[in-house]
Amino acid sequence: MYTNGDIFVGEVIGTAILILFGAGVCAAVTLHHSKAKGAGWVVIAFGWGMGVLAGAYTAAPLSGGHLNPAVTVGSAIAGGTPWSKVPLYVLAQMIGAAVGAVLAWALYYAQFAANAERATAQPTLGIFSTGPEIRKPAANLVTEVIATAGLVLPLLCFGQNKGIGIGQVPGAQAGVYGSGINVLLVALLVVGIGLSLGGPTGYAINPARDLGPRLVHAVLPIPNKGSSDWGYAWIPVAGPLIGAVLSGLVFRLAF
Amino acid sequence: MYTNGDIFVGEVIGTAILILFGAGVCAAVTLHHSKAKGAGWVVIAFGWGMGVLAGAYTAAPLSGGHLNPAVTVGSAIAGGTPWSKVPLYVLAQMIGAAVGAVLAWALYYAQFAANAERATAQPTLGIFSTGPEIRKPAANLVTEVIATAGLVLPLLCFGQNKGIGIGQVPGAQAGVYGSGINVLLVALLVVGIGLSLGGPTGYAINPARDLGPRLVHAVLPIPNKGSSDWGYAWIPVAGPLIGAVLSGLVFRLAF
Amino acid sequence: MYTNGDIFVGEVIGTAILILFGAGVCAAVTLHHSKAKGAGWVVIAFGWGMGVLAGAYTAAPLSGGHLNPAVTVGSAIAGGTPWSKVPLYVLAQMIGAAVGAVLAWALYYAQFAANAERATAQPTLGIFSTGPEIRKPAANLVTEVIATAGLVLPLLCFGQNKGIGIGQVPGAQAGVYGSGINVLLVALLVVGIGLSLGGPTGYAINPARDLGPRLVHAVLPIPNKGSSDWGYAWIPVAGPLIGAVLSGLVFRLAF
Amino acid sequence: MYTNGDIFVGEVIGTAILILFGAGVCAAVTLHHSKAKGAGWVVIAFGWGMGVLAGAYTAAPLSGGHLNPAVTVGSAIAGGTPWSKVPLYVLAQMIGAAVGAVLAWALYYAQFAANAERATAQPTLGIFSTGPEIRKPAANLVTEVIATAGLVLPLLCFGQNKGIGIGQVPGAQAGVYGSGINVLLVALLVVGIGLSLGGPTGYAINPARDLGPRLVHAVLPIPNKGSSDWGYAWIPVAGPLIGAVLSGLVFRLAF
Repeated sequence: MYTNGDIFVGEVIGTAILILFGAGVCAAVTLHHSKAKGAGWVVIAFGWGMGVLAGAYTAAPLSGGHLNPAVTVGSAIAGGTPWSKVPLYVLAQMIGAAVGAVLAWALYYAQFAANAERATAQPTLGIFSTGPEIRKPAANLVTEVIATAGLVLPLLCFGQNKGIGIGQVPGAQAGVYGSGINVLLVALLVVGIGLSLGGPTGYAINPARDLGPRLVHAVLPIPNKGSSDWGYAWIPVAGPLIGAVLSGLVFRLAF
Repeated sequence: MYTNGDIFVGEVIGTAILILFGAGVCAAVTLHHSKAKGAGWVVIAFGWGMGVLAGAYTAAPLSGGHLNPAVTVGSAIAGGTPWSKVPLYVLAQMIGAAVGAVLAWALYYAQFAANAERATAQPTLGIFSTGPEIRKPAANLVTEVIATAGLVLPLLCFGQNKGIGIGQVPGAQAGVYGSGINVLLVALLVVGIGLSLGGPTGYAINPARDLGPRLVHAVLPIPNKGSSDWGYAWIPVAGPLIGAVLSGLVFRLAF
Repeated sequence: MYTNGDIFVGEVIGTAILILFGAGVCAAVTLHHSKAKGAGWVVIAFGWGMGVLAGAYTAAPLSGGHLNPAVTVGSAIAGGTPWSKVPLYVLAQMIGAAVGAVLAWALYYAQFAANAERATAQPTLGIFSTGPEIRKPAANLVTEVIATAGLVLPLLCFGQNKGIGIGQVPGAQAGVYGSGINVLLVALLVVGIGLSLGGPTGYAINPARDLGPRLVHAVLPIPNKGSSDWGYAWIPVAGPLIGAVLSGLVFRLAF
Repeated sequence: MYTNGDIFVGEVIGTAILILFGAGVCAAVTLHHSKAKGAGWVVIAFGWGMGVLAGAYTAAPLSGGHLNPAVTVGSAIAGGTPWSKVPLYVLAQMIGAAVGAVLAWALYYAQFAANAERATAQPTLGIFSTGPEIRKPAANLVTEVIATAGLVLPLLCFGQNKGIGIGQVPGAQAGVYGSGINVLLVALLVVGIGLSLGGPTGYAINPARDLGPRLVHAVLPIPNKGSSDWGYAWIPVAGPLIGAVLSGLVFRLAF
């Protein structure tokens, strides 16, 4: 069993690393005066995927490396994570996501400053949080539900593989080779979700990934930062949670 | 031995995930109002490859994760899968492929709707099924035969590696590390097939992958969806099956 | 010890698969009416790398999966492959490379035909063999020597890792996990060589990969196929062999 | 324990390979008459990452494969590498980086020569060393500190995984599977750092990677090579070292 202290530290550090890489790659591709400006969708998808690799592997020995309330809830329904630990996981994930967003902003500080000074500063929310290409709440919600199921259901099934999946079994971190492989598989799975399922809404698939950085965007003193778009904020929270619950139920039926 | 129930559930879920990612990435790159619009061939190839990763790993503990009648037939010829199970595999793969195509359509629902409203709606069949750049049946068939052999022959040989290949040995799922590695190798193999061998016809290399979504395209109420091109439909069925048979025979001769 | 029959069959099949993928990706990116037309250098590098994955893994249980006279020679100098087997390896690699080039041509048959009918057919040699961007024999030779050392020296060192490297130890194929990982590492190494070291000459780094398909290009009845550029043909043979010898010597000094 | 001789040889060869690939990919994308000219940021990031793969795996059996003073210092703080060995590691890394830069220049010799003859030769320092898009020392330093922490903290945590991390445990190279996987994970981590965190300064994250090639750039007889920009040179040395120290301290607190 993971201790409460380890869960907290692991999920804060791991989620912070995930968001540092994820918000970082969005800044890299979006902001002027970045060497990766305009580098395209494949860079976005691999940047987020390698953020999962870095964050999940770092957190794995401490907390199992969920980094995502949808993963925690799916794992709880599947019987891997005790429900009593879920609030602690989610709290740590939210804090970590906020920390990671601040780090990404600090790393791209000069680029944010240069953007604010432009005659027409581009909006910066897309670096922190997701938004839809076509704003239709029902369709956007369905997109996030299905995309999250595309993450959580395979991830729970990875856990079937001798029970060493993330969040499945307390002793997961004991299996070093399996753990390494599984984290790599999950990272590549997230690359695939980005490439395949991210087109309509930017694939939040993780309430903490979207809400934490959105709070940071609202609070940080970035000039000309544009709207934080709170009207959309419920969808990348509700959609992933619904997707996680459905995945957990399908998993229990199928296995 | 896999039970009939496990084979059915595994192949339906696994193939559905494969097609969700595969049709999804085609929608992502093709449709307007997608963040990945125009992201190019490398995104297509990695999206399909990671769909294999997600689907095959999910299905591996239940059915071995074939997800493809050509793999099932190749495995049967090589002696891995009993011929009596082949119809069940193929049926489940067809159902799964259809389910995955519906999910991809639902995920990109707003984009399909926006496309239908354009003055010149672009055809949507390419999101569901393959089509040739140059329509010459004999050449297209040869392309699909060779490209499928480029999948099935290596895949059967992966199985030689201590007999833990997909579809080779009933106890495949018992070897967690090997299984994880092998699924990753197959996923990257499919990335390579897309990059290298997909240029002429869009690499069906899987009868279920093409026929299932084509049926869905014909049936779904998508306005202005364009033709389902049934005249071409036999090639991505026949070509992969011929390629699988040839691969199985070469395998039996060489090993 | 690998038997002579297994070496021959393994190297023919494995090298054929390598060149099918490698020549295939060059055709995919180069020829008109290919879905990957103009997809860029990253597609070339990953296509060749995944060709190594497919070919080496297929051949590994039979012959160790060299697929390259430079690897065979480096391995012989390092003490892994008996010198008496080297001619057999090289012969099989040459035959396999020729077979693979024919398969790639057959797979892109309609595209080759369409190219021949264009008013200004583009030259096709670049699909089969390498050529320099700047034709300076001494510089081109140095490029191939260093690029091949960037392949063979790491590859020999991979073999140090418990002696399961390609071509190092006869029982290599007995270690399934290690073998799987090592083939993946070599494939990614070849991706990296393409990205980093392929700019000046197109990274032959393999005499069979260049000479076999060049012979096929000279012989095949492709209309308007352009020159086979025999004046350059010695460099992608001599450079890789020199690089392999240097790598073998450095390896023996360092380890 | 690694012997002094093995550490020296391993780090020289490994770092030389890293810089050959890294400077090579910058030359490939930057210089005219390169087949990869203009191939973009994803190629840069994967080229450097696969350079880590090649170099670290080659050096792992001899020295653990640090290739980076920041890794060595982080490992020393975390208790993995004896402080008495740190100067030897750093010396060898500097020599290796210089050797690698010379090799990359030799490999692209014809391209460098052609560039020098252009009416407006492009500056060549970017092939050897990093430079900021916006020159603000404080911001640039923060960027390098955070980006290096994004490398060293996960890397130290990888070592927690049964103690087989790079630089953690002398017997690291004994575990072949784990070692292989870990090197792959570190390589992909460096891909992610490039994609996500490299936008502002080009991600030195390694004092030897920047200073060694900068010295070579200053010394090599390349006509029209442009400035070696010594005013910036302290940042890619100081930033990574600060980031490594912070990572080591966080690691000791968290684990």
